[in-house]
This record gives sequence, C-alpha cells and structure tokens, in this order.
Amino acid sequence: MHDIVYLNGQFMSAAEAKVSIFDRGLMFADSIYDCCPVACGRLINWPLNRARIKRSLHAINLRVPDRFWTELDERLTDLIKLNQLGEGYAYVQVTRGAGDRRFAYHDNMKPTVILSIVRTNIIKRGQAYLGIAVCSIEDLRWERRDIKTTQLLYQIIARMAAESKGCQEAWLVSRGLVTEAASANAYIVQRDGTIVTRPISHEILAGCTREALLSLCKSRGLKVDERAFSLEEAFAAPEAFITSAMHFVTPVTSIDGQEIGDGKIGALTTELHEAFLESIGC
Amino acid sequence: MHDIVYLNGQFMSAAEAKVSIFDRGLMFADSIYDCCPVACGRLINWPLNRARIKRSLHAINLRVPDRFWTELDERLTDLIKLNQLGEGYAYVQVTRGAGDRRFAYHDNMKPTVILSIVRTNIIKRGQAYLGIAVCSIEDLRWERRDIKTTQLLYQIIARMAAESKGCQEAWLVSRGLVTEAASANAYIVQRDGTIVTRPISHEILAGCTREALLSLCKSRGLKVDERAFSLEEAFAAPEAFITSAMHFVTPVTSIDGQEIGDGKIGALTTELHEAFLESIGC
Repeated sequence: MHDIVYLNGQFMSAAEAKVSIFDRGLMFADSIYDCCPVACGRLINWPLNRARIKRSLHAINLRVPDRFWTELDERLTDLIKLNQLGEGYAYVQVTRGAGDRRFAYHDNMKPTVILSIVRTNIIKRGQAYLGIAVCSIEDLRWERRDIKTTQLLYQIIARMAAESKGCQEAWLVSRGLVTEAASANAYIVQRDGTIVTRPISHEILAGCTREALLSLCKSRGLKVDERAFSLEEAFAAPEAFITSAMHFVTPVTSIDGQEIGDGKIGALTTELHEAFLESIGC
Repeated sequence: MHDIVYLNGQFMSAAEAKVSIFDRGLMFADSIYDCCPVACGRLINWPLNRARIKRSLHAINLRVPDRFWTELDERLTDLIKLNQLGEGYAYVQVTRGAGDRRFAYHDNMKPTVILSIVRTNIIKRGQAYLGIAVCSIEDLRWERRDIKTTQLLYQIIARMAAESKGCQEAWLVSRGLVTEAASANAYIVQRDGTIVTRPISHEILAGCTREALLSLCKSRGLKVDERAFSLEEAFAAPEAFITSAMHFVTPVTSIDGQEIGDGKIGALTTELHEAFLESIGC
C-alpha cells in the first residue's frame, strides 16, 4: 500500500509530496518534529506530544496560526484512518517555510507542515522481549537538546557507530554521565529497586514515554530518582532500559559488551513494560 | 529574472525545484553545504571550497560517485552563465537522499545534489566600508563545527539575537574564548600589528576566505598568531574584523556596544580588505 501523507493543507501520495529546495527545514534545519506512537489505530498519549510540539515551536520562535492546532488534531486522526494505520507512529514536522537563503527570518513566513506515518510493531516489538545491546559514545550534540529539532546528524552518527559494533542503540555520555540514548531516554535500576533517570534539563529531550512512565511509576508506588548516572553505575546495575515512542519500555541487556545484571531481562523492566502496555489499553 | 537552479542532474527554474519530504536533508539535516563567492562572473578560490566539500562529505560518510566532482565543476560554471551571475555566491548542498524515516542509512543511497545562486554585492559591499556592530552570545553548537552541515539553527538563533540588539553579526563564545562568528571567522589585531585568529580545530569552521587571507598575510610578511582570544582581549584590541565568502574582510567597529579602537575602521583591516580584493583580480 502506498502511504498517504499530508503536506500544507492537502492529503497526497507520499511520492507526490515535495517541498522547495529553499525550504528552511532543508537549508538550515530550521525545523521541529515529533513522533507520536499509534496503537489500536489511535494516537497514544497525544496530549503529551502535542504539548511538546508547542514547546519546540516556541523555543525556536516558529509562529503558527491558531488554526494550526485544530487542524493538527483533525488531520492526524484523518491520516491514521486514510492509511488504515493500526500500529506504528505518526510523524509531524513543521519548518519555518521557504525563503531566500539568509539566516534572518520574518515572523510572517508561511510554515511548512508535514504529517506522515511509519508502520512498525510497537506493541509486540521483538526488542522489548529480547532486550538490546547498547554502545556508549561521547555526546557531542548542541546544548539545547530539549528542543526536538531536525538537527539529528549526531544521533545518526551515534546510531551508525553503535550498529557497526553490533549494538542496536547508542547511549550518549557527557562529562562521564549518561545523557540519553540516540532516540530514547535511558534508565538504570538500583539494587534497592529505585529507577534512576536523568532529570529534565536542556541536556536531554523530555520524552513523552518517559513522562507517561514516570507517572505510572508514581501511581504504582515505585521509587524513582531523577539524577544523572555514570556508565560505571550502569555496568553495576542489575537492570537497565530505554523508553521512546517506538520502544515503549525496552530492556538493555548489555552496554559496551558488558552484561547488565545476569544479561537477561530484568524483572522490574518486564513489570514496567507490561504496565505500560496495559496503561495504553490495547 | 527568475533564477535557474540545478537539482539532481537537471537545470530548472527555482520555483520548480523540489525534493521529497522524505529527503534526509529535510528530516535529519543529514546534509552538507558550501558557499563559494562569485565575482566578475567566476568562482573565487573554488579549489578551497571544493576541498572543503570533500572533507564535509567524508566526515559524515556521505559517498558520492566519482563523476560527481567533474559534474560539480562543470555544472557550477554552467549555472553561473545561465543566471548571468556577476557577483554573489554559488550554493552547493548535498544530502544523503530520500529514504524511510530511520536513522540508519545504506551506502547505496542516491544523494540529492542542489546547486543554486545568490545575487549580492560582495566586492562593493557597504559593510566592508562602514564596518559592522557585533554582539557576543554563548556558543551552544555541537562539537563538530568543522563539518559544514546544514545544522544551522543555532547560527540562526545567534544572528536573530544579534539583530534584535541592532548588531549585524554574532560572535560566539565558548568558555570565555571567541570561537567564530555565526557565519564568518573572527579576528583581532594586537597593538603590535599581529593578527590573531583561532586555530583550525573541531571547534570552528575552516573558512576558505580565512585560508586565502592567511596565505596573503604570509606573502606580505604580516604576523599572524593562530590562537584563541577572549572577548576582553577583543575589547582592548585596536582593530577587529571578520572574513567569510560574502564578507571577504569586513571591519568590526563595536562589540557588545563597546567601540573597538576609536570606533573607526582600522588601517590594517583596510589594507587586508584591499589586498584581498586585489588578489581575486576583479
């Protein structure tokens, strides 16, 4: 099936959907995006992604008309239906639009709005049951990682470096402390069962799955310590995992070739994964 | 006149030139670019830009076919002629091409090649004779600024911040030391006439105009000290300037509202500007 996408007010086939070579998203990465999981044919925790899109736009001073928000809600729902998407994620990208090649912009530019879908297993994703191997790499990204911009080249470099070593994901490390994964948040579990993950700051992206999971942990009375942790702590931890729109809760069974715990999937990680799936009600 | 551009093997009008919304340049800033000055209808110091394009492509592991290089030389010359471009710059962008929305890429992807032109005064540019006001801002960019990628959002943020304060350019400062300008290299002149500019490293872009100017300084027996300098040193310097494809040698007459020297254009800066214009033979 040929996917249908939405571009600047119109639905069209993916092959038809093109933007100007003068789009600032292409020339300057003057652009933000978001990915919202879709399961059972509907958006999961959409208000969290929607709020993050708003924060990202605000952070780069990209102004959208008021009607953008209603259209976004409605067109995303339409897009999922048109594509008969059961499971995967919805992709939203907003650029500052096309213009002359100069850094400065005007507030009256016409943003480019792109909505598309990606079909992938997120509920019965193998990695959630098999675990993933992670490689560490120095975090060389810019210092506003809280803004979900399309400046993703370092994430690509990190992921490719990890894959070249037989790993499925990279953990980024800054001044000896793990920031996050290339496209996920990173967690360890302490021996006393405390879940440790880096607090929200400019240094990491505020993951929507992270936010949903931490609420879930709270409601279940689980102990969470939001603090930065080192790779050494991770090596010594009995469990480690990542969360993201695509991975929900996915166990990390090794880091840099060292087994985490006994190299098997941890009990608490499994509990969180199941609780998360239950919470989304599919 | 409606400009003509080159996209993936074909010349076309700028309005027609479009790329897929799945182009990795747009989705991920998985893309490099370069700007080469054009004066008297020809590329200036093109071998320097060409070599930098090669370095950028290599740094992000973006493979182009061998014929790319011959085509690049020929099509750029054609483009300048087709557009009857006397003065301005030629813009080259290469992305890793269109594909699924996933970070990992394959070596057999088909790169997107974009060539376009910008018409602007570079020889008789007013700023070279009037000087510019500069504002400083913390350098929050990623740590591989030597690669000329399209991850330019922070440069835009810096430029807009500078313009909001009535400045024409931003100087980026990291750990108290000036790295470079948002789209230029930064220099000060010491009281003894030594020209000071940051040495090439991962922390700054290796400017082609910088390279050409430093050769020129050498041939004229001028003293150059390639070392990082602080804002405080710049405030105390008798002269300051920037170099770039568009600005050649352009005097900085104030930084953060403080006059540099007597607030007028320095004698050495004027000498360098004139020598540079002379060297390009227009």
